[in-house]
Amino acid sequence: MSSSKKITLGLVQMTCVGKPSANLEKAVFRIREAAKKGAQIVSVSELFLSKYFCQVNDKRFFSLAETIPGPATEVFSTLAKALKVVIVGSFFEKEGKDHYNTAVVFDADGSLLGKYRKLHIPDDPEHHYSELFYFKPGNLGLPVFKTRFATIGVSVCWDQWYPENARILAEKGAQIIFYPTAIGWPVAEKGKEVAKTEFDAWITIQRSHAIANGVFVAAVNRTGLEENLDFWGGSFVADPFGKILQQASHDREEIILVDCDLSRIEEVRESWPFLDCRRMKIAEPK
Amino acid sequence: MSSSKKITLGLVQMTCVGKPSANLEKAVFRIREAAKKGAQIVSVSELFLSKYFCQVNDKRFFSLAETIPGPATEVFSTLAKALKVVIVGSFFEKEGKDHYNTAVVFDADGSLLGKYRKLHIPDDPEHHYSELFYFKPGNLGLPVFKTRFATIGVSVCWDQWYPENARILAEKGAQIIFYPTAIGWPVAEKGKEVAKTEFDAWITIQRSHAIANGVFVAAVNRTGLEENLDFWGGSFVADPFGKILQQASHDREEIILVDCDLSRIEEVRESWPFLDCRRMKIAEPK
Repeated sequence: MSSSKKITLGLVQMTCVGKPSANLEKAVFRIREAAKKGAQIVSVSELFLSKYFCQVNDKRFFSLAETIPGPATEVFSTLAKALKVVIVGSFFEKEGKDHYNTAVVFDADGSLLGKYRKLHIPDDPEHHYSELFYFKPGNLGLPVFKTRFATIGVSVCWDQWYPENARILAEKGAQIIFYPTAIGWPVAEKGKEVAKTEFDAWITIQRSHAIANGVFVAAVNRTGLEENLDFWGGSFVADPFGKILQQASHDREEIILVDCDLSRIEEVRESWPFLDCRRMKIAEPK
Repeated sequence: MSSSKKITLGLVQMTCVGKPSANLEKAVFRIREAAKKGAQIVSVSELFLSKYFCQVNDKRFFSLAETIPGPATEVFSTLAKALKVVIVGSFFEKEGKDHYNTAVVFDADGSLLGKYRKLHIPDDPEHHYSELFYFKPGNLGLPVFKTRFATIGVSVCWDQWYPENARILAEKGAQIIFYPTAIGWPVAEKGKEVAKTEFDAWITIQRSHAIANGVFVAAVNRTGLEENLDFWGGSFVADPFGKILQQASHDREEIILVDCDLSRIEEVRESWPFLDCRRMKIAEPK
Protein backbone atom coordinates (compact mmCIF):
# COMPACT_ATOMS: atom_id res chain seq x y z
CA MET A 1 0.00 0.00 0.00
CA SER A 2 1.50 3.30 -1.04
CA SER A 3 1.31 6.24 1.32
CA SER A 4 -1.56 8.66 0.93
CA LYS A 5 -1.02 11.85 -1.03
CA LYS A 6 -4.19 13.86 -0.90
CA ILE A 7 -4.90 16.95 -2.92
CA THR A 8 -8.10 18.86 -3.59
CA LEU A 9 -9.34 19.82 -7.03
CA GLY A 10 -11.74 22.68 -7.68
CA LEU A 11 -13.88 22.65 -10.84
CA VAL A 12 -15.56 25.92 -11.76
CA GLN A 13 -18.76 25.25 -13.69
CA MET A 14 -20.23 28.57 -14.77
CA THR A 15 -22.40 30.35 -17.31
CA CYS A 16 -20.80 32.86 -19.64
CA VAL A 17 -22.13 36.12 -21.02
CA GLY A 18 -21.18 38.30 -23.97
CA LYS A 19 -18.88 40.63 -22.06
CA PRO A 20 -15.39 39.18 -21.42
CA SER A 21 -14.67 41.42 -18.43
CA ALA A 22 -17.79 40.13 -16.68
CA ASN A 23 -16.78 36.51 -17.29
CA LEU A 24 -13.25 37.16 -16.12
CA GLU A 25 -14.52 38.85 -12.98
CA LYS A 26 -16.80 35.94 -12.21
CA ALA A 27 -14.10 33.35 -12.87
CA VAL A 28 -11.70 35.18 -10.55
CA PHE A 29 -14.40 35.32 -7.88
CA ARG A 30 -15.10 31.59 -8.24
CA ILE A 31 -11.45 30.61 -8.21
CA ARG A 32 -10.98 32.63 -5.02
CA GLU A 33 -13.98 30.86 -3.53
CA ALA A 34 -12.61 27.44 -4.55
CA ALA A 35 -9.20 28.25 -3.06
CA LYS A 36 -10.80 29.48 0.16
CA LYS A 37 -12.59 26.14 0.44
CA GLY A 38 -9.32 24.25 0.06
CA ALA A 39 -8.86 23.67 -3.67
CA GLN A 40 -5.22 23.38 -4.72
CA ILE A 41 -5.68 22.92 -8.45
CA VAL A 42 -8.56 24.85 -9.98
CA SER A 43 -9.82 24.60 -13.55
CA VAL A 44 -12.27 26.73 -15.47
CA SER A 45 -14.20 25.53 -18.51
CA GLU A 46 -13.30 25.99 -22.18
CA LEU A 47 -13.14 29.56 -23.51
CA PHE A 48 -14.85 30.89 -20.39
CA LEU A 49 -14.04 34.52 -21.32
CA SER A 50 -16.86 34.69 -23.86
CA LYS A 51 -20.02 33.05 -24.97
CA TYR A 52 -19.36 30.03 -27.18
CA PHE A 53 -18.95 32.09 -30.35
CA CYS A 54 -18.21 29.05 -32.53
CA GLN A 55 -21.93 28.52 -33.09
CA VAL A 56 -21.59 30.79 -36.13
CA ASN A 57 -18.83 31.88 -38.48
CA ASP A 58 -18.31 35.56 -37.82
CA LYS A 59 -15.01 37.37 -38.33
CA ARG A 60 -15.85 39.88 -35.64
CA PHE A 61 -15.21 37.26 -32.97
CA PHE A 62 -11.52 37.17 -33.83
CA SER A 63 -11.28 40.36 -31.81
CA LEU A 64 -11.84 38.20 -28.69
CA ALA A 65 -8.44 36.55 -29.14
CA GLU A 66 -5.46 37.53 -27.01
CA THR A 67 -1.80 36.71 -26.98
CA ILE A 68 -0.43 34.41 -24.28
CA PRO A 69 0.91 35.88 -22.09
CA GLY A 70 -1.62 38.67 -22.40
CA PRO A 71 -4.04 40.70 -20.28
CA ALA A 72 -6.29 37.80 -19.23
CA THR A 73 -3.50 35.33 -18.53
CA GLU A 74 -1.75 38.03 -16.48
CA VAL A 75 -4.82 38.17 -14.26
CA PHE A 76 -4.72 34.39 -13.80
CA SER A 77 -1.00 34.44 -13.10
CA THR A 78 -1.40 37.08 -10.40
CA LEU A 79 -4.34 35.19 -8.94
CA ALA A 80 -2.48 31.86 -8.82
CA LYS A 81 0.39 33.53 -6.99
CA ALA A 82 -1.86 35.35 -4.54
CA LEU A 83 -3.90 32.24 -3.71
CA LYS A 84 -1.01 29.79 -3.97
CA VAL A 85 -3.07 27.52 -6.20
CA VAL A 86 -2.48 25.94 -9.58
CA ILE A 87 -4.91 27.24 -12.22
CA VAL A 88 -5.88 25.64 -15.51
CA GLY A 89 -7.23 28.25 -17.91
CA SER A 90 -8.63 28.08 -21.42
CA PHE A 91 -8.25 30.97 -23.85
CA PHE A 92 -8.78 32.02 -27.45
CA GLU A 93 -5.14 32.62 -28.37
CA LYS A 94 -3.70 34.68 -31.17
CA GLU A 95 -0.13 34.35 -32.27
CA GLY A 96 0.68 36.57 -35.21
CA LYS A 97 -1.98 35.80 -37.80
CA ASP A 98 -2.81 32.39 -36.31
CA HIS A 99 -5.44 31.52 -33.75
CA TYR A 100 -5.68 28.55 -31.39
CA ASN A 101 -7.94 27.11 -28.74
CA THR A 102 -5.38 27.01 -25.96
CA ALA A 103 -5.18 25.76 -22.40
CA VAL A 104 -2.69 27.35 -20.03
CA VAL A 105 -1.36 26.08 -16.72
CA PHE A 106 -0.18 28.44 -13.99
CA ASP A 107 1.77 27.04 -11.09
CA ALA A 108 1.01 28.01 -7.49
CA ASP A 109 3.73 30.70 -7.63
CA GLY A 110 2.03 32.37 -10.59
CA SER A 111 4.48 31.15 -13.20
CA LEU A 112 3.08 30.17 -16.57
CA LEU A 113 4.20 26.55 -16.85
CA GLY A 114 3.22 26.20 -20.47
CA LYS A 115 0.37 25.82 -22.86
CA TYR A 116 -1.46 23.21 -24.86
CA ARG A 117 -3.30 23.89 -28.09
CA LYS A 118 -6.39 21.82 -28.82
CA LEU A 119 -5.38 19.16 -31.31
CA HIS A 120 -8.65 17.97 -32.81
CA ILE A 121 -10.94 20.72 -34.03
CA PRO A 122 -14.62 19.96 -34.62
CA ASP A 123 -16.27 21.30 -37.74
CA ASP A 124 -19.94 20.57 -37.32
CA PRO A 125 -22.18 23.51 -38.27
CA GLU A 126 -25.28 21.33 -38.02
CA HIS A 127 -24.77 20.88 -34.30
CA HIS A 128 -23.38 24.41 -33.86
CA TYR A 129 -19.71 23.58 -33.32
CA SER A 130 -17.89 25.41 -36.14
CA GLU A 131 -14.44 25.63 -34.72
CA LEU A 132 -12.31 25.23 -37.82
CA PHE A 133 -13.36 28.74 -38.89
CA TYR A 134 -11.57 30.06 -35.80
CA PHE A 135 -8.83 27.69 -34.70
CA LYS A 136 -5.86 26.05 -36.30
CA PRO A 137 -5.24 22.51 -35.03
CA GLY A 138 -2.74 22.55 -32.17
CA ASN A 139 0.96 22.41 -32.95
CA LEU A 140 2.45 21.96 -29.50
CA GLY A 141 1.90 18.22 -29.07
CA LEU A 142 0.80 16.94 -25.67
CA PRO A 143 2.86 18.50 -22.88
CA VAL A 144 2.52 17.62 -19.23
CA PHE A 145 2.99 20.18 -16.49
CA LYS A 146 4.80 19.51 -13.23
CA THR A 147 2.86 21.69 -10.84
CA ARG A 148 3.46 22.12 -7.13
CA PHE A 149 0.74 19.60 -6.28
CA ALA A 150 0.72 17.07 -9.13
CA THR A 151 1.82 16.41 -12.68
CA ILE A 152 -1.09 17.25 -14.92
CA GLY A 153 -2.08 17.14 -18.57
CA VAL A 154 -4.81 19.04 -20.38
CA SER A 155 -6.94 18.17 -23.37
CA VAL A 156 -9.67 20.52 -24.53
CA CYS A 157 -13.26 19.46 -25.31
CA TRP A 158 -13.35 17.54 -28.65
CA ASP A 159 -9.95 16.12 -27.69
CA GLN A 160 -11.73 14.34 -24.84
CA TRP A 161 -13.14 11.83 -27.33
CA TYR A 162 -9.65 10.62 -28.30
CA PRO A 163 -8.07 7.81 -26.26
CA GLU A 164 -4.76 8.75 -27.91
CA ASN A 165 -4.53 12.04 -26.02
CA ALA A 166 -5.02 10.44 -22.64
CA ARG A 167 -2.61 7.60 -23.38
CA ILE A 168 0.22 9.92 -24.37
CA LEU A 169 -0.35 12.19 -21.38
CA ALA A 170 -0.35 9.22 -19.00
CA GLU A 171 2.81 7.83 -20.59
CA LYS A 172 4.47 11.17 -19.95
CA GLY A 173 3.55 11.04 -16.29
CA ALA A 174 0.26 12.93 -16.01
CA GLN A 175 -1.53 12.00 -12.79
CA ILE A 176 -4.61 14.08 -13.55
CA ILE A 177 -5.98 14.99 -16.96
CA PHE A 178 -8.13 18.12 -17.13
CA TYR A 179 -10.74 18.50 -19.85
CA PRO A 180 -11.96 22.11 -20.05
CA THR A 181 -15.11 21.77 -22.12
CA ALA A 182 -18.00 23.59 -23.79
CA ILE A 183 -20.49 20.93 -24.77
CA GLY A 184 -24.24 21.00 -24.79
CA TRP A 185 -27.40 19.89 -26.45
CA PRO A 186 -28.71 21.58 -29.54
CA VAL A 187 -31.93 23.13 -28.21
CA ALA A 188 -34.03 20.94 -30.48
CA GLU A 189 -32.65 17.79 -28.82
CA LYS A 190 -33.28 18.69 -25.22
CA GLY A 191 -35.41 16.21 -23.32
CA LYS A 192 -35.19 13.66 -26.12
CA GLU A 193 -33.66 10.22 -25.71
CA VAL A 194 -30.67 11.24 -27.84
CA ALA A 195 -29.77 13.94 -25.32
CA LYS A 196 -29.43 11.38 -22.55
CA THR A 197 -27.41 9.08 -24.81
CA GLU A 198 -25.01 11.87 -25.73
CA PHE A 199 -24.44 12.95 -22.16
CA ASP A 200 -23.91 9.35 -21.15
CA ALA A 201 -21.37 8.84 -23.97
CA TRP A 202 -19.51 11.96 -22.85
CA ILE A 203 -19.19 10.62 -19.32
CA THR A 204 -18.29 7.14 -20.52
CA ILE A 205 -15.48 8.11 -22.88
CA GLN A 206 -13.77 10.21 -20.21
CA ARG A 207 -14.19 7.59 -17.50
CA SER A 208 -12.61 5.14 -19.95
CA HIS A 209 -9.48 7.30 -20.18
CA ALA A 210 -9.17 7.07 -16.41
CA ILE A 211 -9.55 3.29 -16.57
CA ALA A 212 -7.23 2.65 -19.53
CA ASN A 213 -4.46 4.73 -18.00
CA GLY A 214 -4.90 4.67 -14.24
CA VAL A 215 -5.22 8.45 -13.94
CA PHE A 216 -7.69 10.91 -12.47
CA VAL A 217 -9.78 12.79 -15.00
CA ALA A 218 -11.46 16.13 -14.34
CA ALA A 219 -14.00 17.37 -16.89
CA VAL A 220 -15.01 21.02 -16.46
CA ASN A 221 -17.95 22.04 -18.59
CA ARG A 222 -19.90 25.27 -18.92
CA THR A 223 -23.59 25.50 -18.19
CA GLY A 224 -26.40 27.75 -19.40
CA LEU A 225 -28.35 28.39 -22.59
CA GLU A 226 -26.58 30.32 -25.36
CA GLU A 227 -28.49 30.70 -28.62
CA ASN A 228 -28.74 27.18 -30.11
CA LEU A 229 -26.85 25.30 -27.44
CA ASP A 230 -27.90 24.31 -23.97
CA PHE A 231 -24.58 23.57 -22.25
CA TRP A 232 -25.05 20.48 -20.17
CA GLY A 233 -22.76 21.10 -17.19
CA GLY A 234 -22.25 17.79 -15.43
CA SER A 235 -18.61 18.56 -14.60
CA PHE A 236 -17.05 15.62 -12.79
CA VAL A 237 -13.94 13.96 -11.45
CA ALA A 238 -13.31 10.24 -11.92
CA ASP A 239 -10.70 8.24 -10.04
CA PRO A 240 -8.05 6.02 -11.72
CA PHE A 241 -10.50 3.17 -12.09
CA GLY A 242 -13.21 5.34 -13.61
CA LYS A 243 -15.35 5.77 -10.52
CA ILE A 244 -17.06 9.14 -10.43
CA LEU A 245 -16.05 10.86 -7.20
CA GLN A 246 -18.31 13.86 -7.62
CA GLN A 247 -20.45 15.41 -10.31
CA ALA A 248 -22.13 18.77 -10.81
CA SER A 249 -25.71 19.39 -11.93
CA HIS A 250 -26.69 20.04 -15.53
CA ASP A 251 -28.00 23.52 -15.08
CA ARG A 252 -26.47 25.34 -12.13
CA GLU A 253 -23.32 27.32 -11.60
CA GLU A 254 -21.28 25.30 -9.14
CA ILE A 255 -17.86 24.79 -7.75
CA ILE A 256 -17.17 21.16 -7.07
CA LEU A 257 -14.37 20.36 -4.67
CA VAL A 258 -12.97 16.87 -4.94
CA ASP A 259 -10.40 15.23 -2.70
CA CYS A 260 -8.09 12.97 -4.70
CA ASP A 261 -5.59 10.62 -3.14
CA LEU A 262 -2.81 10.41 -5.71
CA SER A 263 -1.52 7.17 -4.17
CA ARG A 264 -4.63 5.58 -5.65
CA ILE A 265 -2.93 5.78 -9.06
CA GLU A 266 -0.21 3.38 -8.03
CA GLU A 267 -2.67 1.08 -6.29
CA VAL A 268 -4.89 0.79 -9.35
CA ARG A 269 -1.97 0.33 -11.71
CA GLU A 270 -0.63 -2.49 -9.55
CA SER A 271 -3.95 -4.30 -9.67
CA TRP A 272 -4.62 -3.59 -13.35
CA PRO A 273 -1.23 -3.02 -15.02
CA PHE A 274 -2.55 -2.05 -18.45
CA LEU A 275 0.23 0.45 -19.07
CA ASP A 276 2.97 -2.07 -18.32
CA CYS A 277 2.21 -4.55 -21.04
CA ARG A 278 0.91 -2.31 -23.80
CA ARG A 279 2.44 -3.05 -27.17
CA MET A 280 1.37 -0.20 -29.40
CA LYS A 281 3.12 3.10 -29.69
CA ILE A 282 1.11 6.19 -30.58
CA ALA A 283 2.85 8.88 -32.60
CA GLU A 284 2.41 12.27 -30.94
CA PRO A 285 1.39 14.99 -33.40
CA LYS A 286 3.60 18.05 -33.66
CA MET B 1 -30.24 8.61 -43.73
CA SER B 2 -28.50 5.44 -44.82
CA SER B 3 -30.60 2.40 -45.61
CA SER B 4 -31.11 -0.17 -42.91
CA LYS B 5 -28.88 -3.23 -42.81
CA LYS B 6 -30.00 -5.46 -40.01
CA ILE B 7 -28.16 -8.48 -38.76
CA THR B 8 -28.55 -10.58 -35.65
CA LEU B 9 -25.73 -11.46 -33.29
CA GLY B 10 -25.80 -14.44 -30.95
CA LEU B 11 -23.65 -14.43 -27.82
CA VAL B 12 -23.16 -17.74 -26.07
CA GLN B 13 -22.56 -17.22 -22.35
CA MET B 14 -21.85 -20.56 -20.74
CA THR B 15 -20.14 -22.38 -17.90
CA CYS B 16 -17.23 -24.66 -18.66
CA VAL B 17 -16.20 -27.94 -17.10
CA GLY B 18 -12.98 -29.91 -17.01
CA LYS B 19 -13.77 -32.15 -19.95
CA PRO B 20 -13.20 -30.51 -23.36
CA SER B 21 -15.59 -32.83 -25.22
CA ALA B 22 -18.42 -31.82 -22.90
CA ASN B 23 -17.74 -28.13 -23.43
CA LEU B 24 -17.51 -28.60 -27.18
CA GLU B 25 -20.78 -30.50 -27.22
CA LYS B 26 -22.51 -27.78 -25.22
CA ALA B 27 -21.10 -24.99 -27.37
CA VAL B 28 -22.28 -26.76 -30.53
CA PHE B 29 -25.73 -27.21 -29.01
CA ARG B 30 -25.90 -23.51 -28.04
CA ILE B 31 -24.67 -22.30 -31.41
CA ARG B 32 -27.36 -24.42 -33.10
CA GLU B 33 -29.93 -22.92 -30.76
CA ALA B 34 -28.71 -19.39 -31.50
CA ALA B 35 -28.83 -20.03 -35.25
CA LYS B 36 -32.31 -21.48 -34.98
CA LYS B 37 -33.43 -18.30 -33.27
CA GLY B 38 -32.02 -16.18 -36.08
CA ALA B 39 -28.43 -15.42 -35.14
CA GLN B 40 -26.17 -14.84 -38.13
CA ILE B 41 -22.88 -14.23 -36.32
CA VAL B 42 -22.37 -16.29 -33.18
CA SER B 43 -19.52 -15.96 -30.71
CA VAL B 44 -18.46 -18.14 -27.82
CA SER B 45 -16.39 -16.94 -24.85
CA GLU B 46 -12.63 -17.18 -24.40
CA LEU B 47 -11.08 -20.68 -24.23
CA PHE B 48 -14.53 -22.26 -23.84
CA LEU B 49 -13.11 -25.77 -24.42
CA SER B 50 -11.77 -26.02 -20.91
CA LYS B 51 -11.96 -24.55 -17.47
CA TYR B 52 -9.87 -21.42 -17.14
CA PHE B 53 -6.63 -23.29 -16.49
CA CYS B 54 -4.54 -20.11 -16.22
CA GLN B 55 -5.41 -19.81 -12.53
CA VAL B 56 -2.32 -21.90 -11.88
CA ASN B 57 0.95 -22.70 -13.63
CA ASP B 58 0.76 -26.36 -14.54
CA LYS B 59 2.56 -27.91 -17.50
CA ARG B 60 -0.07 -30.60 -17.81
CA PHE B 61 -2.50 -28.06 -19.24
CA PHE B 62 -0.38 -27.67 -22.35
CA SER B 63 -1.98 -30.92 -23.48
CA LEU B 64 -5.21 -28.96 -24.00
CA ALA B 65 -3.69 -27.06 -26.90
CA GLU B 66 -4.55 -27.91 -30.51
CA THR B 67 -3.30 -26.84 -33.89
CA ILE B 68 -5.48 -24.59 -36.02
CA PRO B 69 -6.93 -26.05 -38.13
CA GLY B 70 -7.35 -29.02 -35.82
CA PRO B 71 -10.07 -31.28 -34.40
CA ALA B 72 -12.06 -28.59 -32.57
CA THR B 73 -11.89 -25.99 -35.29
CA GLU B 74 -12.99 -28.64 -37.79
CA VAL B 75 -16.15 -29.11 -35.76
CA PHE B 76 -16.79 -25.36 -35.83
CA SER B 77 -16.11 -25.17 -39.54
CA THR B 78 -18.58 -27.94 -40.27
CA LEU B 79 -21.12 -26.34 -37.99
CA ALA B 80 -20.81 -22.89 -39.59
CA LYS B 81 -21.37 -24.44 -43.00
CA ALA B 82 -24.34 -26.51 -41.89
CA LEU B 83 -26.04 -23.60 -40.13
CA LYS B 84 -24.93 -20.94 -42.63
CA VAL B 85 -23.73 -18.74 -39.79
CA VAL B 86 -20.48 -16.98 -39.04
CA ILE B 87 -18.81 -18.30 -35.88
CA VAL B 88 -16.20 -16.62 -33.71
CA GLY B 89 -14.28 -19.21 -31.70
CA SER B 90 -11.53 -18.99 -29.12
CA PHE B 91 -8.92 -21.71 -28.72
CA PHE B 92 -5.68 -22.64 -26.99
CA GLU B 93 -3.49 -22.93 -30.06
CA LYS B 94 -0.23 -24.76 -30.50
CA GLU B 95 2.08 -24.15 -33.41
CA GLY B 96 5.24 -26.19 -33.18
CA LYS B 97 6.65 -25.46 -29.72
CA ASP B 98 4.74 -22.20 -29.33
CA HIS B 99 1.34 -21.62 -27.78
CA TYR B 100 -1.14 -18.79 -28.27
CA ASN B 101 -4.53 -17.61 -27.06
CA THR B 102 -6.20 -17.49 -30.44
CA ALA B 103 -9.53 -16.39 -31.87
CA VAL B 104 -10.73 -17.90 -35.13
CA VAL B 105 -13.42 -16.69 -37.50
CA PHE B 106 -15.38 -19.09 -39.69
CA ASP B 107 -17.47 -17.69 -42.51
CA ALA B 108 -21.02 -18.88 -43.16
CA ASP B 109 -19.74 -21.37 -45.74
CA GLY B 110 -17.48 -23.01 -43.17
CA SER B 111 -14.25 -21.50 -44.45
CA LEU B 112 -11.70 -20.47 -41.89
CA LEU B 113 -11.26 -16.78 -42.65
CA GLY B 114 -8.29 -16.33 -40.40
CA LYS B 115 -7.11 -16.04 -36.87
CA TYR B 116 -6.07 -13.46 -34.32
CA ARG B 117 -3.69 -14.13 -31.47
CA LYS B 118 -4.25 -12.24 -28.22
CA LEU B 119 -1.74 -9.41 -28.14
CA HIS B 120 -1.61 -8.39 -24.49
CA ILE B 121 -1.11 -11.24 -22.04
CA PRO B 122 -1.94 -10.71 -18.38
CA ASP B 123 0.47 -12.01 -15.78
CA ASP B 124 -1.30 -11.55 -12.50
CA PRO B 125 -1.02 -14.59 -10.20
CA GLU B 126 -2.49 -12.64 -7.27
CA HIS B 127 -5.82 -12.32 -9.09
CA HIS B 128 -5.49 -15.76 -10.71
CA TYR B 129 -4.73 -14.71 -14.29
CA SER B 130 -1.33 -16.28 -15.03
CA GLU B 131 -1.39 -16.34 -18.78
CA LEU B 132 2.25 -15.65 -19.60
CA PHE B 133 3.08 -19.16 -18.41
CA TYR B 134 0.95 -20.50 -21.26
CA PHE B 135 0.74 -18.00 -24.10
CA LYS B 136 3.20 -16.08 -26.21
CA PRO B 137 1.99 -12.58 -27.07
CA GLY B 138 0.23 -12.57 -30.43
CA ASN B 139 2.28 -12.14 -33.59
CA LEU B 140 -0.43 -11.74 -36.21
CA GLY B 141 -1.28 -8.07 -35.68
CA LEU B 142 -4.93 -7.03 -35.81
CA PRO B 143 -6.67 -8.56 -38.82
CA VAL B 144 -10.27 -7.88 -39.80
CA PHE B 145 -12.46 -10.53 -41.34
CA LYS B 146 -14.90 -9.89 -44.18
CA THR B 147 -17.68 -12.29 -43.35
CA ARG B 148 -20.89 -12.84 -45.27
CA PHE B 149 -22.83 -10.56 -42.94
CA ALA B 150 -20.36 -7.92 -41.74
CA THR B 151 -16.70 -7.02 -41.46
CA ILE B 152 -15.61 -7.97 -37.97
CA GLY B 153 -12.58 -7.76 -35.74
CA VAL B 154 -11.74 -9.76 -32.63
CA SER B 155 -9.77 -8.91 -29.52
CA VAL B 156 -9.51 -11.38 -26.67
CA CYS B 157 -10.14 -10.56 -22.99
CA TRP B 158 -7.21 -8.49 -21.60
CA ASP B 159 -6.98 -6.86 -25.05
CA GLN B 160 -10.40 -5.35 -24.35
CA TRP B 161 -8.76 -2.83 -22.00
CA TYR B 162 -6.68 -1.34 -24.83
CA PRO B 163 -8.19 1.47 -26.91
CA GLU B 164 -5.42 0.86 -29.43
CA ASN B 165 -6.87 -2.51 -30.50
CA ALA B 166 -10.29 -1.08 -31.19
CA ARG B 167 -8.93 1.95 -33.03
CA ILE B 168 -6.84 -0.13 -35.40
CA LEU B 169 -9.68 -2.57 -36.07
CA ALA B 170 -12.09 0.29 -36.80
CA GLU B 171 -9.57 1.97 -39.09
CA LYS B 172 -9.34 -1.28 -41.02
CA GLY B 173 -13.09 -1.39 -41.50
CA ALA B 174 -14.39 -3.52 -38.64
CA GLN B 175 -18.10 -2.87 -38.08
CA ILE B 176 -18.35 -5.11 -35.05
CA ILE B 177 -15.61 -5.96 -32.57
CA PHE B 178 -16.02 -9.22 -30.67
CA TYR B 179 -14.39 -9.66 -27.26
CA PRO B 180 -14.39 -13.34 -26.22
CA THR B 181 -13.62 -13.12 -22.53
CA ALA B 182 -12.99 -15.05 -19.33
CA ILE B 183 -13.15 -12.52 -16.54
CA GLY B 184 -14.47 -12.86 -13.04
CA TRP B 185 -14.14 -11.89 -9.44
CA PRO B 186 -11.61 -13.53 -7.17
CA VAL B 187 -13.91 -15.33 -4.75
CA ALA B 188 -12.70 -13.20 -1.86
CA GLU B 189 -13.95 -10.04 -3.61
CA LYS B 190 -17.47 -11.14 -4.36
CA GLY B 191 -20.17 -8.91 -2.95
CA LYS B 192 -17.67 -6.23 -2.01
CA GLU B 193 -17.74 -2.71 -3.43
CA VAL B 194 -14.61 -3.44 -5.47
CA ALA B 195 -16.46 -6.18 -7.35
CA LYS B 196 -19.08 -3.72 -8.55
CA THR B 197 -16.41 -1.19 -9.51
CA GLU B 198 -14.51 -3.77 -11.53
CA PHE B 199 -17.55 -4.97 -13.42
CA ASP B 200 -18.54 -1.38 -14.12
CA ALA B 201 -15.04 -0.57 -15.42
CA TRP B 202 -15.21 -3.61 -17.70
CA ILE B 203 -18.47 -2.41 -19.23
CA THR B 204 -17.25 1.17 -19.46
CA ILE B 205 -13.99 0.51 -21.25
CA GLN B 206 -15.71 -1.59 -23.91
CA ARG B 207 -18.56 0.87 -24.38
CA SER B 208 -15.89 3.52 -24.85
CA HIS B 209 -14.40 1.61 -27.78
CA ALA B 210 -17.82 1.68 -29.44
CA ILE B 211 -18.05 5.43 -28.84
CA ALA B 212 -14.52 6.37 -29.89
CA ASN B 213 -14.80 4.40 -33.12
CA GLY B 214 -18.46 4.26 -34.07
CA VAL B 215 -18.59 0.46 -34.07
CA PHE B 216 -20.68 -2.22 -32.42
CA VAL B 217 -18.96 -4.13 -29.65
CA ALA B 218 -19.96 -7.60 -28.49
CA ALA B 219 -18.41 -8.89 -25.26
CA VAL B 220 -18.92 -12.61 -24.64
CA ASN B 221 -17.92 -13.74 -21.18
CA ARG B 222 -18.08 -17.07 -19.40
CA THR B 223 -20.09 -17.59 -16.23
CA GLY B 224 -19.80 -19.97 -13.29
CA LEU B 225 -17.50 -20.60 -10.37
CA GLU B 226 -14.14 -22.28 -11.10
CA GLU B 227 -11.77 -22.64 -8.16
CA ASN B 228 -10.71 -19.09 -7.21
CA LEU B 229 -12.65 -17.20 -9.84
CA ASP B 230 -16.32 -16.44 -10.07
CA PHE B 231 -16.79 -15.55 -13.75
CA TRP B 232 -19.11 -12.58 -13.92
CA GLY B 233 -21.02 -13.21 -17.16
CA GLY B 234 -22.71 -9.95 -18.12
CA SER B 235 -22.11 -10.51 -21.85
CA PHE B 236 -23.44 -7.55 -23.81
CA VAL B 237 -23.67 -5.75 -27.11
CA ALA B 238 -23.28 -1.98 -27.36
CA ASP B 239 -24.23 0.11 -30.38
CA PRO B 240 -21.85 2.57 -32.12
CA PHE B 241 -22.58 5.28 -29.59
CA GLY B 242 -21.99 3.01 -26.62
CA LYS B 243 -25.60 2.27 -25.77
CA ILE B 244 -26.08 -1.21 -24.37
CA LEU B 245 -28.60 -3.00 -26.55
CA GLN B 246 -28.80 -6.12 -24.44
CA GLN B 247 -26.98 -7.69 -21.54
CA ALA B 248 -26.89 -11.13 -19.95
CA SER B 249 -27.08 -11.94 -16.24
CA HIS B 250 -24.04 -12.47 -14.06
CA ASP B 251 -24.70 -16.07 -13.18
CA ARG B 252 -26.78 -17.90 -15.74
CA GLU B 253 -25.99 -19.68 -18.97
CA GLU B 254 -27.70 -17.64 -21.65
CA ILE B 255 -27.79 -16.97 -25.33
CA ILE B 256 -28.43 -13.34 -26.03
CA LEU B 257 -29.70 -12.46 -29.48
CA VAL B 258 -29.19 -8.87 -30.52
CA ASP B 259 -30.46 -7.15 -33.65
CA CYS B 260 -27.93 -4.66 -34.97
CA ASP B 261 -28.63 -2.22 -37.75
CA LEU B 262 -25.25 -1.69 -39.39
CA SER B 263 -26.43 1.54 -41.00
CA ARG B 264 -26.31 2.99 -37.50
CA ILE B 265 -22.51 3.06 -37.85
CA GLU B 266 -22.65 5.59 -40.64
CA GLU B 267 -25.31 7.64 -38.87
CA VAL B 268 -23.29 7.91 -35.68
CA ARG B 269 -20.06 8.67 -37.52
CA GLU B 270 -21.76 11.48 -39.42
CA SER B 271 -22.98 13.05 -36.20
CA TRP B 272 -19.75 12.45 -34.27
CA PRO B 273 -16.94 12.21 -36.84
CA PHE B 274 -14.16 11.32 -34.42
CA LEU B 275 -12.41 9.06 -36.90
CA ASP B 276 -12.28 11.73 -39.60
CA CYS B 277 -10.20 14.26 -37.79
CA ARG B 278 -7.95 12.08 -35.70
CA ARG B 279 -4.31 13.07 -35.86
CA MET B 280 -2.45 10.24 -34.18
CA LYS B 281 -1.31 7.10 -35.85
CA ILE B 282 -0.98 3.92 -33.82
CA ALA B 283 1.70 1.46 -34.82
CA GLU B 284 0.23 -2.03 -35.18
CA PRO B 285 2.33 -4.70 -33.45
CA LYS B 286 3.57 -7.57 -35.55
